[in-house]
Amino acid sequence: MIALEEKILKEGVVLPGDILKVDCFLNHSIDVPFLIEMGKEIATLFENESVNKILTIETSGIPIAFAAAMFMHVPVVFAKKNKSGNISDNLYSARVESFTRKTVYDAVVSKEYLGKSDTVLLIDDFLAKGHALNGLIDIVDQAGARLVGCAIAIEKGFQGGGDKLREKGIRVESLAIIDSMTDDSLTFRK
Amino acid sequence: MIALEEKILKEGVVLPGDILKVDCFLNHSIDVPFLIEMGKEIATLFENESVNKILTIETSGIPIAFAAAMFMHVPVVFAKKNKSGNISDNLYSARVESFTRKTVYDAVVSKEYLGKSDTVLLIDDFLAKGHALNGLIDIVDQAGARLVGCAIAIEKGFQGGGDKLREKGIRVESLAIIDSMTDDSLTFRK
Repeated sequence: MIALEEKILKEGVVLPGDILKVDCFLNHSIDVPFLIEMGKEIATLFENESVNKILTIETSGIPIAFAAAMFMHVPVVFAKKNKSGNISDNLYSARVESFTRKTVYDAVVSKEYLGKSDTVLLIDDFLAKGHALNGLIDIVDQAGARLVGCAIAIEKGFQGGGDKLREKGIRVESLAIIDSMTDDSLTFRK
Repeated sequence: MIALEEKILKEGVVLPGDILKVDCFLNHSIDVPFLIEMGKEIATLFENESVNKILTIETSGIPIAFAAAMFMHVPVVFAKKNKSGNISDNLYSARVESFTRKTVYDAVVSKEYLGKSDTVLLIDDFLAKGHALNGLIDIVDQAGARLVGCAIAIEKGFQGGGDKLREKGIRVESLAIIDSMTDDSLTFRK
């Protein structure tokens, strides 16, 4: 999505530790019309897949998932991040390491909201090593639901998580894939 | 909003400790078309207020804020919940006690995204004792921004937080106000 690449170049800031700060439109302040365009793009990419549910994870995945869901006419379920270590019986859960925050948490989803009759699209804002996304895929497996693929706003291609999933045959569509990133240059995969 | 009252009666579950569980459409699984209707209602209530920014707080305030922002043509800024106790200089912050979770955190907003030229509407999913909302009001004050009011999905009127704010002259519009709540009955303020 060219408009997203241009926006990252114009508004994004690269911080030490391979962090791309896009707080100004995606993670803290939300550029609503722009996210609606991103949602429309995701809906178009998966329009033939009979998706009946979008699964994302709190927090920053929620606005994009909401935007895509509007066009796909499906509900959004968001996994919650549970740090207590206590998981009740009525939850699916998957242990996730956070790359940015250097923390570990359990992604949890109530069994009420995901099951074997579901055809699921996963959506998240970032894909780096793929830890959060792998957790969501694990949860979809636990539920016995069908996974049609993953839609990501920004993939850090150089961290390899997306390509590992593609090698397993999972469809991963990222609206922008960053090939390399330094303080003063940022290149996208074409 | 009659449709919301009906939905709470039909789908909500009252749990011990004055907790109303509306996971099935608001807090975990998101009924996107319904939230869009809620957003439209909020936009109508504040249409003459020249709002240029919506401020909410992660996580569950985000979808409603996003929906309202679509109709109001403004960006959404969401406060983050910081539990580390470390607040950097470029953040506004306010200490908040969570009623439901019995935890304390700092609501934080980057100074980049809120300032004295802003006219702000606060949006959240729940209003009980008003702790989170008071934190957001404090942040709006710190920023020197103008507060036009607060839009809430579900107010627990019997916990008094909304009325305390109204007594201070702050406009609080809740789409449903619960007057009393027990396992087998739930009444709304008319």
